[in-house]
Amino acid sequence: MPYRAPLDDLRFLIDHVAGFQMITATPRFADASGDMVPAILAEAAKLSETVLAPLQRAGDQHPATLEDGVVRTSPGFGAGYHAIAEGGWIGMSAHPESGGMGLPMTLTTAVNEMLSSACLSLQLNPLMTQGQIEALEHHASDTLKAIYLPKLVSGAWSGTMNLTEPQAGSDVGALRATATPNDDGSYVITGQKIYISWGDNDFTENVCHLVLARLPDSAPGTKGISLFMVPKYIPDAEGNLGQRNTLNVVSIEHKLGLHGSPTAVMQYDAAQGWLVGPENGGMAAMFTMMNNARLGVGVQGIGAAEGAYQHALAYAQDRKQGRAGGSGAIIEHADVKRMLAEMKADIFAARAIALLNAAAIDMATATGEVSWRARAAFLTPICKAFGTDTGISVASSGIQIHGGMGYIEQTGAAQYARDVRVTAIYEGTNGIQAMDLVARKLSDGGAAAFSFIDEIQTGADAAKAAHATLAKAVWNASENLREATEWLLTQDDLSMRFAGAAPYLRAFARVLGGHAHLRAAQSGEAKRIKLARFYINRLLPEHQGLLAAVRDGADDLFALTPEDLSA
Amino acid sequence: MPYRAPLDDLRFLIDHVAGFQMITATPRFADASGDMVPAILAEAAKLSETVLAPLQRAGDQHPATLEDGVVRTSPGFGAGYHAIAEGGWIGMSAHPESGGMGLPMTLTTAVNEMLSSACLSLQLNPLMTQGQIEALEHHASDTLKAIYLPKLVSGAWSGTMNLTEPQAGSDVGALRATATPNDDGSYVITGQKIYISWGDNDFTENVCHLVLARLPDSAPGTKGISLFMVPKYIPDAEGNLGQRNTLNVVSIEHKLGLHGSPTAVMQYDAAQGWLVGPENGGMAAMFTMMNNARLGVGVQGIGAAEGAYQHALAYAQDRKQGRAGGSGAIIEHADVKRMLAEMKADIFAARAIALLNAAAIDMATATGEVSWRARAAFLTPICKAFGTDTGISVASSGIQIHGGMGYIEQTGAAQYARDVRVTAIYEGTNGIQAMDLVARKLSDGGAAAFSFIDEIQTGADAAKAAHATLAKAVWNASENLREATEWLLTQDDLSMRFAGAAPYLRAFARVLGGHAHLRAAQSGEAKRIKLARFYINRLLPEHQGLLAAVRDGADDLFALTPEDLSA
Repeated sequence: MPYRAPLDDLRFLIDHVAGFQMITATPRFADASGDMVPAILAEAAKLSETVLAPLQRAGDQHPATLEDGVVRTSPGFGAGYHAIAEGGWIGMSAHPESGGMGLPMTLTTAVNEMLSSACLSLQLNPLMTQGQIEALEHHASDTLKAIYLPKLVSGAWSGTMNLTEPQAGSDVGALRATATPNDDGSYVITGQKIYISWGDNDFTENVCHLVLARLPDSAPGTKGISLFMVPKYIPDAEGNLGQRNTLNVVSIEHKLGLHGSPTAVMQYDAAQGWLVGPENGGMAAMFTMMNNARLGVGVQGIGAAEGAYQHALAYAQDRKQGRAGGSGAIIEHADVKRMLAEMKADIFAARAIALLNAAAIDMATATGEVSWRARAAFLTPICKAFGTDTGISVASSGIQIHGGMGYIEQTGAAQYARDVRVTAIYEGTNGIQAMDLVARKLSDGGAAAFSFIDEIQTGADAAKAAHATLAKAVWNASENLREATEWLLTQDDLSMRFAGAAPYLRAFARVLGGHAHLRAAQSGEAKRIKLARFYINRLLPEHQGLLAAVRDGADDLFALTPEDLSA
Repeated sequence: MPYRAPLDDLRFLIDHVAGFQMITATPRFADASGDMVPAILAEAAKLSETVLAPLQRAGDQHPATLEDGVVRTSPGFGAGYHAIAEGGWIGMSAHPESGGMGLPMTLTTAVNEMLSSACLSLQLNPLMTQGQIEALEHHASDTLKAIYLPKLVSGAWSGTMNLTEPQAGSDVGALRATATPNDDGSYVITGQKIYISWGDNDFTENVCHLVLARLPDSAPGTKGISLFMVPKYIPDAEGNLGQRNTLNVVSIEHKLGLHGSPTAVMQYDAAQGWLVGPENGGMAAMFTMMNNARLGVGVQGIGAAEGAYQHALAYAQDRKQGRAGGSGAIIEHADVKRMLAEMKADIFAARAIALLNAAAIDMATATGEVSWRARAAFLTPICKAFGTDTGISVASSGIQIHGGMGYIEQTGAAQYARDVRVTAIYEGTNGIQAMDLVARKLSDGGAAAFSFIDEIQTGADAAKAAHATLAKAVWNASENLREATEWLLTQDDLSMRFAGAAPYLRAFARVLGGHAHLRAAQSGEAKRIKLARFYINRLLPEHQGLLAAVRDGADDLFALTPEDLSA
């Protein structure tokens, strides 16, 4: 569908909210300055607008299929993939030693958003490969790195992640796939994995599966899990492909959306695999991949939201109905404009959070400082859950703006909603993200949270002179957030935190959005001031109701027994 | 899919919140008392559970099709329809003179909810007929009544409503279909209508279309619109079917959901029609049908929510994952339980609003009092929008609770979400409902709104002794609502109201939900007290953020130009 990359907003947020100058001031990213940023973004925009956007409907209407064990991808997807690969976009943040461009994640995040808007189901393929590249860079042996990284970075081969089994979803520790050592240092991998995104395709030479499995006599739970590279074709040391490994796509799922992306049930029958990271150290390696993917999935939500927004905006500008003022189009109707304004303001907030997240990763990479690492870790679940929730709500509003047309598949509005729905589920459900936030991410005594709240309040103080009312609203909201955070930290019983985890995450995102919009208002640009006013006066107040739910704790919730809920 | 009718909740709300005793104390509904209510509800429950629920998946997987101009319905739908008709459910609130049972709308509302939970796409058919029956009872000539009503009430014939044209959706006044008088008192109807739910089927003997069209030289806009009965087969005075009318199904839509319900493009080529109501009085007649349908569609949302809730609850009780307490099933996880509790508490609130709405209709019918009529009119847009929004949010949570399984069509969770999505659009989008609420429904100077708020506060005062905290929260929330309502009434510029219409409607629903839960708590039943606490402490506070948006008025919204939204 038609798509125009939001380059103005992306560049603005990269420079004025994410603090890109700080990143390029580090030796690690000194090369990424100057004219490079607009050139890179413009190139990715062109690819997204002209090559990928036309594929989006094809992916939905001609789903990937499985024929005699072979996956056939949607028409045009092969060419689209090769265009992404040839542009160097898959490995743009990979280390130059791996053949990558070593660019900041901040830029990759902006690029990934554009690719997601244009064709979410295809973009998921390189996103998985990006996560695999990062996992291998951090955890694989030099031998494995030498074989796999150049091929993954170039896009000649693609990567998948294999965690889930029928009995082991959110509870990864329950998995049963087995790995037994061979004499040559490789392992025999056996088991079934489900929900494997892009488990196979017909456009890369090889498909590289990172598979979690258990060694004989390993400890139960997550401590006994190891990670293995299990390629579809077994390469030699030079990366030449040899024999077919004993792994197969058993079936692909009939899903609500994302039809262009084959979601496979994978069967490993004594397949040959190679250990990545230490034995029983699989979770650490997997989390490297997963954290990368969680940021990436949050960005998918934002990308889908932007696509759905543009699609609805075009309709609202075109469709004439009733006694609207101005152009006579429905965009002039108050409630349609309200929906569009909410969509745009939320996308801006979610995008700001994603870029702040990516910037923290870059600063952690460049400086090695623990505080940056903590900030990146703190923002990841917020970015993932709020980005994808925004994708879902914006896509639903997109349907609503289309009226009856929104319910007709031909219009395309419904596809955004169907496609984006899974992003709140995969790579850890949004509920898991919220639990991660209030438990692990507050286990530093709230240091990361409070440092952010301090920064928001410093920002609000600085904005007072020009935008007194807005600044006060953001300051007060962040103070409410501080009090709720302090309250959570006094709760040693994690149930008390978990009961309010989802509303706490959303409230934090709401306040971060206020922070970003307030910074945007300080640019003095009229359109940014107007959008900031709309967000801060109309959407930020949602945090009050959310924090009331947080402070209610677990008593009211846990009083309800399964019998009460059934009756 | 498996479904168990929530008879306990329905009976409780009918008796303790909707005030059924008040209804049966009127001469009009004196017969509907005693043992009749449980017997009727149990019978409808049985039909829904055993006959209709098994059809739901069939409707999705084997959509209605159009073959050579003939609609073929989903497998089993014909038998399911006849079971509904033979039970007398279509005409249960129709006047005995029309062959109906003359039962209160309160009971019909409960029954319609059950049918909707079981098979939404099929239930839409009799729902449309019910609206047509009411329109004919109020507006048709005795001749038309005598021919059509007995057939519609028995279900031998079905009814549709034909408003929308490609250029005339929410703006009905823009329609162009024409009606020119014949010498015999009938009219020649020509034009195309779109989005005609159940525009045709293969299980009723006749399909009766109520069609809005313009007479020659009629006034522009809604004042020049008349309503016509245009049957598929033309009956004689005794209701014997004669020749085929010149109307046709041109195509049926490929929709996001509700595949079992054929949504038709209808072509009228000089078809023969008969005037319903006076010339140029079509809108009044149509609104009779529409108001009935708006309550009915709100109830569809609630029915879909209940179905999705039960489906998710069963999964959550069955699925084991992680270190959950108790049964070890995921229902014991705080965030899963949170979702289920929100779903159940919201369904209870929405159901209470629908039954209050129906009860007000019944009291208006029985007493003719203007104040009851005003209350029914005031509640209709709230019931329609909040009921359907609840359907959408609950169905989405249902997907989420299923995790990855929720995204796989085979599971059935996604169907609820796809099916219910249209309910926020048809019979007037939820935005139209909100505008209706803040404009027309406040045009009495707020009398209907304030009388309800007074009643909520009286109820809260009465609950103080037993439930001080809960009562205070509901009282305060209703006072906030009063202040926001007063503020809206000072705004003569309707734009100022429209800008906050949607959040105002939702805030009103939230407070009504608090009112209903508080009343439920007063029953002393432990499960109702616990659910009331959860709702009032955790969900009711949402009204604060919503009312902040209302009081922000239109300035921030209208400051945003289409250019600002595009940039």
